[in-house]
Amino acid sequence: MNISESERNALYKVIFSRRDVRSEFLPKVVANDVVQRILKAAHHAPSVGFMQPWDFIVVTDTEKKIAIKKGFTEANKHSSALFTPEKSSQYNKLKLEGIVEAPLGICVTCDRNRNGPVVLGRTIKPEMDLYSAVCAVQNMWLAARAENLGLGWVSIIHDSVLRDVLAIPENIDIIGYLCLGYVSEFKAKPELEEKGWLPRMDIDDVIHHNAWSK
Amino acid sequence: MNISESERNALYKVIFSRRDVRSEFLPKVVANDVVQRILKAAHHAPSVGFMQPWDFIVVTDTEKKIAIKKGFTEANKHSSALFTPEKSSQYNKLKLEGIVEAPLGICVTCDRNRNGPVVLGRTIKPEMDLYSAVCAVQNMWLAARAENLGLGWVSIIHDSVLRDVLAIPENIDIIGYLCLGYVSEFKAKPELEEKGWLPRMDIDDVIHHNAWSK
Repeated sequence: MNISESERNALYKVIFSRRDVRSEFLPKVVANDVVQRILKAAHHAPSVGFMQPWDFIVVTDTEKKIAIKKGFTEANKHSSALFTPEKSSQYNKLKLEGIVEAPLGICVTCDRNRNGPVVLGRTIKPEMDLYSAVCAVQNMWLAARAENLGLGWVSIIHDSVLRDVLAIPENIDIIGYLCLGYVSEFKAKPELEEKGWLPRMDIDDVIHHNAWSK
Repeated sequence: MNISESERNALYKVIFSRRDVRSEFLPKVVANDVVQRILKAAHHAPSVGFMQPWDFIVVTDTEKKIAIKKGFTEANKHSSALFTPEKSSQYNKLKLEGIVEAPLGICVTCDRNRNGPVVLGRTIKPEMDLYSAVCAVQNMWLAARAENLGLGWVSIIHDSVLRDVLAIPENIDIIGYLCLGYVSEFKAKPELEEKGWLPRMDIDDVIHHNAWSK
């Protein structure tokens, strides 16, 4: 199946305009068929040995969102204190999640025991199953953007909080908690670039030829 | 920036027709501007704290490819022996890499010390930097498909082989080695599904609502 030049350009448009959204979520309802399309895109990510180790817990319950937000707030207070005073002051001005505002949360997990203990392609590199579930997150992120929805990855939270609130069994690994919803805008650049937290690296500085070259 | 319905459908076409390619690589040269576009897509993946922890080592040298293939062959022999006799027999019939045939290899790495020890968003979940580099792999995979190029992830190889052959420093983590090139065909379904290694899971079995439900 051939991909045309306009289809290729559409992919690049989605990739370059994808953002990590925290502040811009709107209360507008996301239709169920849109959510289903996004989850289907995630389910068609590559997976090691076709293991499909992922699960997706869709969170709409307000009380559960509030409990998750509480976990973030505690973890964020601890995190802020780890930076230098100057960086910490800048950190505290950033809004780093949209847990309660976003109409949907999606917790992505990885069942490392799915389909038995020996998995094709995971025999040497055990982390491949976790990496497969991360590929599902990235498919989801791009699908959301293509549906004109924003997505934000909340990483400043302990797995134990998500495990408790969402009743995730001990044998299931937690990859991440994503906020999903329509947005007031997609920023032209990543927020952390725009606000001077870190600059975009020159691409030539991350490309090497035939051997590491730094 | 709005994504139109036809642009959205183009993304889904790319996602659903992406394959892990092992057997179908053609010797056709991949133009440098195509490789650059694919790497730019990878460089625009999401990264925790805008850390951009990735590097990309582009491998075209035949001797290096042969050395990497040797590492695969040893690791694969060991891996095959881990399966039950029946599964091992099926395993041995699968071609699981295209290291020498693919015109390009790309080794993706993660520099966990980039931009200092404290990274915004990595304070609680230390694996977030590795996951960022995996998101770059998935962007690369989709960009390759959109350029009508195949990509295959070679995971049956010890990091130590790639580290030796590509002179990757000890402080740099290795995410994966990808083979890239034009292909004779993209299979209609994933090869492991087509050949009955494992079936595609029903998507309803991996979706939960507000709590784990199995």
